[in-house]
Amino acid sequence: MKLYEQLFDELINRIEGGYYPVGSRLPSIRALSKERGVSISTVQEAYQRLEESGYTEVRVKSGYYVRARGESPELPDVSRPVQRPLEVTYWDQVYHLLTGSDSDGHIAFGTAKPDIHTPTLKPLLKALTNSAACTSEDFLNYSSMHGSKRLRKQIARLAVNSGCNLHPDEIIITSGCQEALMCSLRAVTEPGDIVAIDSPSFYGSTQAIKSLGLKALEIPTHPETGISIEALEMAIEQWPVKAIQVTPTCNNPLGYTMPEGRRKELLRLAQQCDLPIIEDDIYGDLYYRSPRPKTIKSFDDEGRVLLCSSFSKTIAYGLRLGWVAPGQCTDRVLHKKFISTVSSPPIQQEAVADFIENGYYERHLRVMRQQYQQARDVMIDLVKRNFPEGTKISFPQGGYILWVEFPIEVDSVKLNKLLESRNISIAPGVIFSASGKYRNFIRMNFSRVPDEKIKTALKAVAEEARNLMLEETVPE
Amino acid sequence: MKLYEQLFDELINRIEGGYYPVGSRLPSIRALSKERGVSISTVQEAYQRLEESGYTEVRVKSGYYVRARGESPELPDVSRPVQRPLEVTYWDQVYHLLTGSDSDGHIAFGTAKPDIHTPTLKPLLKALTNSAACTSEDFLNYSSMHGSKRLRKQIARLAVNSGCNLHPDEIIITSGCQEALMCSLRAVTEPGDIVAIDSPSFYGSTQAIKSLGLKALEIPTHPETGISIEALEMAIEQWPVKAIQVTPTCNNPLGYTMPEGRRKELLRLAQQCDLPIIEDDIYGDLYYRSPRPKTIKSFDDEGRVLLCSSFSKTIAYGLRLGWVAPGQCTDRVLHKKFISTVSSPPIQQEAVADFIENGYYERHLRVMRQQYQQARDVMIDLVKRNFPEGTKISFPQGGYILWVEFPIEVDSVKLNKLLESRNISIAPGVIFSASGKYRNFIRMNFSRVPDEKIKTALKAVAEEARNLMLEETVPE
Repeated sequence: MKLYEQLFDELINRIEGGYYPVGSRLPSIRALSKERGVSISTVQEAYQRLEESGYTEVRVKSGYYVRARGESPELPDVSRPVQRPLEVTYWDQVYHLLTGSDSDGHIAFGTAKPDIHTPTLKPLLKALTNSAACTSEDFLNYSSMHGSKRLRKQIARLAVNSGCNLHPDEIIITSGCQEALMCSLRAVTEPGDIVAIDSPSFYGSTQAIKSLGLKALEIPTHPETGISIEALEMAIEQWPVKAIQVTPTCNNPLGYTMPEGRRKELLRLAQQCDLPIIEDDIYGDLYYRSPRPKTIKSFDDEGRVLLCSSFSKTIAYGLRLGWVAPGQCTDRVLHKKFISTVSSPPIQQEAVADFIENGYYERHLRVMRQQYQQARDVMIDLVKRNFPEGTKISFPQGGYILWVEFPIEVDSVKLNKLLESRNISIAPGVIFSASGKYRNFIRMNFSRVPDEKIKTALKAVAEEARNLMLEETVPE
Repeated sequence: MKLYEQLFDELINRIEGGYYPVGSRLPSIRALSKERGVSISTVQEAYQRLEESGYTEVRVKSGYYVRARGESPELPDVSRPVQRPLEVTYWDQVYHLLTGSDSDGHIAFGTAKPDIHTPTLKPLLKALTNSAACTSEDFLNYSSMHGSKRLRKQIARLAVNSGCNLHPDEIIITSGCQEALMCSLRAVTEPGDIVAIDSPSFYGSTQAIKSLGLKALEIPTHPETGISIEALEMAIEQWPVKAIQVTPTCNNPLGYTMPEGRRKELLRLAQQCDLPIIEDDIYGDLYYRSPRPKTIKSFDDEGRVLLCSSFSKTIAYGLRLGWVAPGQCTDRVLHKKFISTVSSPPIQQEAVADFIENGYYERHLRVMRQQYQQARDVMIDLVKRNFPEGTKISFPQGGYILWVEFPIEVDSVKLNKLLESRNISIAPGVIFSASGKYRNFIRMNFSRVPDEKIKTALKAVAEEARNLMLEETVPE
């Protein structure tokens, strides 16, 4: 047995024995070489074999990390939503999710909030204080409908990372991504119109569709490659679709990231049918690997794509700071922004501009991407080991959201009700559909690497899910 | 001649000679009695005669102020808008107003922003800094859809001043009054519906009506008593009106404050026809006298009135902090708020809650009301003395907005264009109508007592208006 093979076996033992748990980083090549008195190349070889065997994965500029072991869990099936335009419902469940318990020790798996207990946000807190402090009186009267020029410049600069050449004047600051989506939808539709959406889909946008008197046409969506362009094309032939709305990068809730080729195909289809695309990129900057995927907007030279995003997922939810680059529709979107809230408050805008200008945002992103990727592996491992047999799990390439498909007997609305007394909440699948599908699905947050409390809560979710399965199989 | 008559004549001479200019405060009774060596009662008698003769007016807890002299200027006529539902236009003019020059020395008569250069706002600036500083990480994730409980408690407490008994849970915090109006409109109408509005009417709400696919039915409105209830009743008989929207207190732009009896009549009519009322109270706390008028909401025991307001006019525009008490429609409005912006940022909410809790808000209001009342008198006097003969002027009882009716030859859109080169802007009347009426009207801000710069600018407005009148009368 060669030296590197010996080392390889030993490392596997350490991983399988839990000495290096899932999500943890292996010692650096240099450190291990020193510790074991072997050459750098021996360690390199052993590490490479570990990676090839699926035990670890490399993270850019960071090192080797232990992956979830054994076989990959099965992905959820390609969605098969009802193939006709539908009214959106389930507001009661969304309301429940959003106004859920804030009691001590409550575990809110359902919310999609980032981890904000990170030292990389300290400069932002300082910038906020400074910004509020120099909110001399004049600042209080600040009122650009477009939003802070300084912030728009920074957004335009960052957009280069996703292949986009944006001018600051093409960007409108909004009160969160929700306002960006809402203004975009309103700019390209009239009440009664049909909007084609990926399915499952973010409840904020389906609720907007409902409230605007639009109809949602849910398109089958693959858990790895995203919205089915073939199905979309057929749907457009059959129905008078007026707009396409998708979240192609680090999709919420399904986790997929559309391959670049599919993005281009989607844009081509939109061009052929002369349809606008509303592209939600809210998780885009949380793609784990570098470079991040190019937006559909980056391939669009006609101004057909309305690109919506926000700092709610990358920095903090409470900022309520989003933006939209509406292409051709800039004037229309600006009118919608005006009648919606006129303009957004300056303090947060200037503070975030400051945070980005000084390089803190990009540093923060680097740290968070690693944390989320590590948390994903630990979370998937836990879910796989604890949840009922037959559970399928998404494999997100960015962000901190897991989409879990339980066996069909598990009604997630009931599950949520059962978990209430245990001070736990999840996001039931039904809110991600216009047609009441995904009843046996849940969405779970993994913004922090699971600690003991979270592990216990996960076991409780598994237990109640099993109880529901038993109930279903016992005849009354 | 009695001693008080002698004093009375002397004071008139001082006022007419400009020694006590319009808007200035007379010496206190005690001070004048000491200065002139006459009894307190002699001064009191002289002051009372001055008031009865229209030279001065009493302001609560403040003293006697010199009023605009001579005869009151004529009020604008009762409006006679087109008596059918109309699509709203003139967005280009609104856009122009809102994105106007910010260059040095620009005089923006058109905007409706409060004076924020006042020491009474210092505690707010401090509260903002504190609020941002203690925006510990948790604060950044704050996300109540309803808004800060602490702020809602204060709003409920203040509502008692307008006769309202509100529970904090009946209040939803919004991103400015615009979002409150928008969510209210959306909660009580469907696209295609007709909304009856006072006329002239705030462009933010008429633009919202336009954008929502609604039609505005403009009701004749009296410059002192507000919307004509008789005309409204006839309109409701003729058209399928779905909601009534009014600004009964310190109306923007017309300046009227509906008498209490008319408010009750309006509510009665709404009850008879089973219609909701959207009541915009944004200037309500700036009513000059005390107590401020009761809201229509205060007489409503069915939850028929959706009361909308904001701190944009009373504190500062840049806070983007409003609220709505939607009565029966609370759930519907909350859904509209969710899809609009989900929730509003916490920093401003907590700072304003702090500002109110510590009594600073009410102190600030007392000071601003006096400033605005004084500024009104000076402004009206200046307009009267400078503007072309035949100009009519509103006489607002609160706030800082003047509605000026020029002779018919003056096209205010053209006027605005002419003023551009002089670095002055006004709000042209057309944006306050759905039907392109009020072309010879302008709205002017008087949030600060006019200084020499403003006086010069006012003369420029008058000059260009006269030029337009000449152009119109000279045959080409």
